[in-house]
Amino acid sequence: MSHLTLEQLNAISAADFTAALADIYEHSPWVAEAAAKRRPYPTLHALHEAMMAAVKSAPAEARMKLITAHPDLAGKAARAGALTVDTSNEQTSAGLDRLSETDFARFHQLNDAYKAKFGIPFIVCVRRHTKDSILDQFERRLAHGNGTGDATEIDTALTEIFRIAALRLDSRVTAHDKLPVKGHLSTHVLDTHNGKPAEGVALELWELSRDGTARLIAKAVTNKDGRTHDPIIGGRPVPIGTYELRFWLGNHFRSRNVPLADPPFLDVVPIRFSVAEPEGRYHVPLSASPWAYGTYRGS
Amino acid sequence: MSHLTLEQLNAISAADFTAALADIYEHSPWVAEAAAKRRPYPTLHALHEAMMAAVKSAPAEARMKLITAHPDLAGKAARAGALTVDTSNEQTSAGLDRLSETDFARFHQLNDAYKAKFGIPFIVCVRRHTKDSILDQFERRLAHGNGTGDATEIDTALTEIFRIAALRLDSRVTAHDKLPVKGHLSTHVLDTHNGKPAEGVALELWELSRDGTARLIAKAVTNKDGRTHDPIIGGRPVPIGTYELRFWLGNHFRSRNVPLADPPFLDVVPIRFSVAEPEGRYHVPLSASPWAYGTYRGS
Amino acid sequence: MSHLTLEQLNAISAADFTAALADIYEHSPWVAEAAAKRRPYPTLHALHEAMMAAVKSAPAEARMKLITAHPDLAGKAARAGALTVDTSNEQTSAGLDRLSETDFARFHQLNDAYKAKFGIPFIVCVRRHTKDSILDQFERRLAHGNGTGDATEIDTALTEIFRIAALRLDSRVTAHDKLPVKGHLSTHVLDTHNGKPAEGVALELWELSRDGTARLIAKAVTNKDGRTHDPIIGGRPVPIGTYELRFWLGNHFRSRNVPLADPPFLDVVPIRFSVAEPEGRYHVPLSASPWAYGTYRGS
Amino acid sequence: MSHLTLEQLNAISAADFTAALADIYEHSPWVAEAAAKRRPYPTLHALHEAMMAAVKSAPAEARMKLITAHPDLAGKAARAGALTVDTSNEQTSAGLDRLSETDFARFHQLNDAYKAKFGIPFIVCVRRHTKDSILDQFERRLAHGNGTGDATEIDTALTEIFRIAALRLDSRVTAHDKLPVKGHLSTHVLDTHNGKPAEGVALELWELSRDGTARLIAKAVTNKDGRTHDPIIGGRPVPIGTYELRFWLGNHFRSRNVPLADPPFLDVVPIRFSVAEPEGRYHVPLSASPWAYGTYRGS
Repeated sequence: MSHLTLEQLNAISAADFTAALADIYEHSPWVAEAAAKRRPYPTLHALHEAMMAAVKSAPAEARMKLITAHPDLAGKAARAGALTVDTSNEQTSAGLDRLSETDFARFHQLNDAYKAKFGIPFIVCVRRHTKDSILDQFERRLAHGNGTGDATEIDTALTEIFRIAALRLDSRVTAHDKLPVKGHLSTHVLDTHNGKPAEGVALELWELSRDGTARLIAKAVTNKDGRTHDPIIGGRPVPIGTYELRFWLGNHFRSRNVPLADPPFLDVVPIRFSVAEPEGRYHVPLSASPWAYGTYRGS
Repeated sequence: MSHLTLEQLNAISAADFTAALADIYEHSPWVAEAAAKRRPYPTLHALHEAMMAAVKSAPAEARMKLITAHPDLAGKAARAGALTVDTSNEQTSAGLDRLSETDFARFHQLNDAYKAKFGIPFIVCVRRHTKDSILDQFERRLAHGNGTGDATEIDTALTEIFRIAALRLDSRVTAHDKLPVKGHLSTHVLDTHNGKPAEGVALELWELSRDGTARLIAKAVTNKDGRTHDPIIGGRPVPIGTYELRFWLGNHFRSRNVPLADPPFLDVVPIRFSVAEPEGRYHVPLSASPWAYGTYRGS
Repeated sequence: MSHLTLEQLNAISAADFTAALADIYEHSPWVAEAAAKRRPYPTLHALHEAMMAAVKSAPAEARMKLITAHPDLAGKAARAGALTVDTSNEQTSAGLDRLSETDFARFHQLNDAYKAKFGIPFIVCVRRHTKDSILDQFERRLAHGNGTGDATEIDTALTEIFRIAALRLDSRVTAHDKLPVKGHLSTHVLDTHNGKPAEGVALELWELSRDGTARLIAKAVTNKDGRTHDPIIGGRPVPIGTYELRFWLGNHFRSRNVPLADPPFLDVVPIRFSVAEPEGRYHVPLSASPWAYGTYRGS
Repeated sequence: MSHLTLEQLNAISAADFTAALADIYEHSPWVAEAAAKRRPYPTLHALHEAMMAAVKSAPAEARMKLITAHPDLAGKAARAGALTVDTSNEQTSAGLDRLSETDFARFHQLNDAYKAKFGIPFIVCVRRHTKDSILDQFERRLAHGNGTGDATEIDTALTEIFRIAALRLDSRVTAHDKLPVKGHLSTHVLDTHNGKPAEGVALELWELSRDGTARLIAKAVTNKDGRTHDPIIGGRPVPIGTYELRFWLGNHFRSRNVPLADPPFLDVVPIRFSVAEPEGRYHVPLSASPWAYGTYRGS
C-alpha cells in the first residue's frame, strides 16, 4: 500500500499498476488489471471512472463475485483478525471494532437476516457512517426488496463499493485533482458582548448514540479569529450521525471579567445537530453573550 | 398544619395563634408566642416582619438555641424519620432523601466539619437549592470564617432560617399579599420557518448534576401560542442549579411536512442554563427554523 | 352617532333602532330597518350577521344602489366636504385627505378607469389600508374582471362594505362580544448584553411609502419590562403597508455606561416590515447587544 | 506619480528618489530627500518609519512649515482647482468636492475658527472620514486646547499627516509588505429557511448623513456562497461614518417559491451601523428566514 502519484501509475508496467491498485476493489485485482490497459489517465477522476466502468462492464458473475468477496460488517472475520488491511481500518473508523456484546449480536443477526433475504453480504461504505446510521441502513434495506437477486440491492451494493473504492484511491494516489469524498465540519465563536471573535474558548465534539452513550471525537480551543486552527473534522467524510458541540462559554466571559450571575446563566453550551451528507460542508457557529446565543448551519 | 387566613390568625386566641404557627421556626414556638402579642397584622408581610423581629430582639442564647434546634442536612435524623414534617418535605424537595451512599457520606462529613468549625449545624433553605448548590454553599461557608461564634456564619444561618420561615408562612397562611418567595421558569417556541408560534412541540426540563446524572423535572407540550399551559416551574422557588430544556423540534417540522435532511439537522434541541436567583423570572424561549435557532434569558 | 349598548338597541323602538344604525351602511337606512325586525340580538356578532343577511337577501337593484351610494375615494366630494362623517374619518385615517396633487390626480384617474370598466365606484375598507396598499388594490382589481356587472368585483365591493360596516358597528355599539376587526402591533426590547429587558429605550414607528416619504405614526419609550405601556397600534386595524420601527439603542447602552465604539456600531436600529393582515397580531421585538441584534414576527 | 517598486526606489539616484516621493509630504520634498540618504529599505514599513523620523527630527520650524503647507479642507483652493493632485483626490473621496452651499459655508467657518484659535490649518486624513465625521473632528478639536502653539493639536496634525503619507506611499510603492492602512467591509447572507447560503440576493451599501441624505456607495449580488465576489469596501480605509446595508430579501424567497405574506413581512431589510475603525475588518452578515433575521459585527 505504498503511496503513488498519478504520473507514476501512468508510467509503470501493467503488472506493477495492477499490483499497486489490486486492493482498491476487495479481493478483486482484475479491476485494476482492466484499468491498466486504458492508461494514461489525465486525472484521478478519470482513473476512478475507468475502474468503475470495468466493474460495470464485467460479466454479471464477476460483479457478483466482487460483491460476495466482502466480509460481514463487524463479523467474525473482524474478531479473528482476518480482514484486509483496508477493511479493518474502515470498520475501526465507525467503532465496529469496539461493539458491546449486545451490539455485536445485533450486527450478527442483521448480517444473517440480510444474507438470508438477498443472498449477498450487506455492504456499506462505513467511513461515511456511525454505528447508528449503519443500523438504520440495515433496517431500511432489509425492509425493502424482493429477496435473492434483487436488482435494487445489487445496485446499492455496487454504489457502496464504488464509494469505498473512491476513498481508497483518494488516500493512495496523489494527483492534481481530488475525488469529492471529503466533508468538513467547522465552527466559529463570536462574542456578541464585546463584538469580537471569542478567543480561547475550549470546545469539544461528541458523537451521540441512540443508546445514550457519547464518544469524544475532538477537542480544540478557538484562536484569535474565534476559529479552530484546523477544521474539527476534515480530510475525510463526516460520518452520518448525531453530534454535540460543547463550548466552555462561561469560562470565556469569566476570563474577560464580564459580570456574570453565580452560577452563570450560560456555562457549557451544547449544540446538538445531525449530519446527513458526509461529503458536505458543515459550519456550526456560536454567537453568544452571557445571556443569549444562536447557531445555524453555515457552509 | 391546617391552612388559615390572616383574618383568622388575627381573630383567634393567642394560644391558638401560637399553636398554629408553632413550627414556622423549627422547634421554637416562642417566636409565634411573641408575635401573637403584636396582632392584628394588616399583611402577611407584616406578620413575617414581626416574627423576624422577635428572633432578632431575643436574647443571644435563645437565637443560638433556635439555630441548634435544626437537624443535620441529609443526616441520620432524616434516615431515621425523626424530622419535623416541614423539614422532611423540604429536604425531599432537593433530593436529599435519595442520596447515593457516596453523597450521603459526603454530606455527613461536611456536616461534621461545619459543626466542628463553627459549633452550629449547617443551615440552608433547601427549597432554594439543588444538591449541587447545597454542596457549593457548604464548601464556601466552610472555607470562610473564624470558627465557633463566627458572626458572619450566625448571620447567614439566621438569613436562611428567615427564608425557611417565609416559605412556611406563605404555604400556611392565605392573605391579600404574597411574600416574594416564588420564582418562575417558562418557555416559548417560535417557528421562524413559517412565522408563527410553534404548536404541539414536546419539551422536557431536566436538572443536571455535576456527577453526570440528570433528573426529569417536567414535561409539557406547547399550545397554539407556542407556550406551555402552566409555567414549567411556578408557585415555588426555582432551585439554584443547572438545567436543560429539551425541545422535540424535528418532530414539529416533520409533522408540518417541512422538507428536512435525513436525519434532520436539528432534532432534539437542548438548551442548558443555570439559575442563580430562585425568586427570579426565567423565560427561556426557543426561536428556530430547521437550520438555525436562538435563545435568550427573558423575563 | 351616539354610543349605545346592545341592550339598548334591543330595547328601543324600531324607528329609533333604524335611526341609530342608519349610517352603518352608506346612505342605506333600509339595512338597519330590516335588522330591527329580527331583534333581540344576543351578541354584536349576531347583529352584524343579520345586517349582512339583509343586504345579501335584498333585491339585486337594492344592493347595486348601496354600492353606487359610495363616494369616490379621495374624490372631489372629499375635497368639497360632502362626505358622510364616517366616510370622511375613514379616508382621513389612510391619509387620503392630504394627498399631493400627483397622488390626487392618480386616484382621480384610477377612480374613473374603474368606473368606466365596472360601472360601479371602487370601494375598499380604507381603515385597513395605507395609501400604497389602496393603490395596489386599485391596480389588481382593475387588471382583472370582465367589465360592467362583473360578479367577482360586485362580491369584492360587498366584502369591503361589510368590513366597513363591522368597523362602524364596533365603534358605535358596546356589547359583551367584540367583532374581530382590530389588529395589534407591539414590540419588546431585550438587552442581551446584561440579560434584562431594556428599559427607557426610545422608539418610533414610521409608515413608509413607495414614493420615498415616511410618516411618523407613534413614539414610545420602553418600560422596565422592555415593553411599551400600550401597544404601538391597538384598538383598530393595522393598515396593510410597510413600516419601520426605529430603536435608539446606542443611547440605551451609553446611559448604562457600556463601553462602545465611537461612533457606536449600532445607534438607531431600524426594523422594516410589512403588515398583510390588518386584524392580525404583530409582535416585532428587538434583542440586542451593542454588536448584534435580531428580530422576528411574534404574536 | 509613476508607480515604483521598493527595489527600484532602493536602486535609483538620490535625486530620482526625492523626485519620486516629493509629494508624499505636502509641498515638502525635503522629507524624501532626507529619506534618500538612509537607503536601502528592506520593507515599505521601514521606508515609512524613516520618512516619519525625518519629520520628527527636523527643526520645529520645518515641521510647522509642513503643517501650514496644507490647504484648507473644502476651501477656496479646492474650488479654484489649486490643490495638489493627491489632495484633490483625497478631498473628493469624502465628498468634499460636492458640498452644498450650506456645508461649504460651514467648512469655511470652521476652517477660519480653527486657524484663528490654533494658528495652523485644520488637517485630517480625509480618506478615513465621511463629511459627518470630519465635522465631528472639527468640533472636538476646536473645543479642546489652548490656542496657538497648542502641543496636542500640533501632535494631532502630525499624526494625520503621517496617516496621509502612509496612504500615499501605499498607493505609490509596491513592496512585499503592506502598510496597515486598509479596511474591509463585507457581508454574507444565510437563508435559515432552507439552511443554505442565499444566492442571488441583491444588496446595496448606502452612506447616511446626519442631514438626512443618503449616498449609494456600492451594489452587489450574492454568489452561491452567499457572499459578494469582492468585499463591499476593500483596498482602502472604510471611512468613519454611518452606513446602511439594504438586502432584497423578499425577492430572494419569492424566486425560490417560498410561501410569503402579501406584502411579505420582510422585503428590503436595512442594517444600519457605524464604522469607527477605518482600518478594521467589518463583516456584517444577515441570517434570515421570511419571518426573522439577525446580524452581528463579525470580522
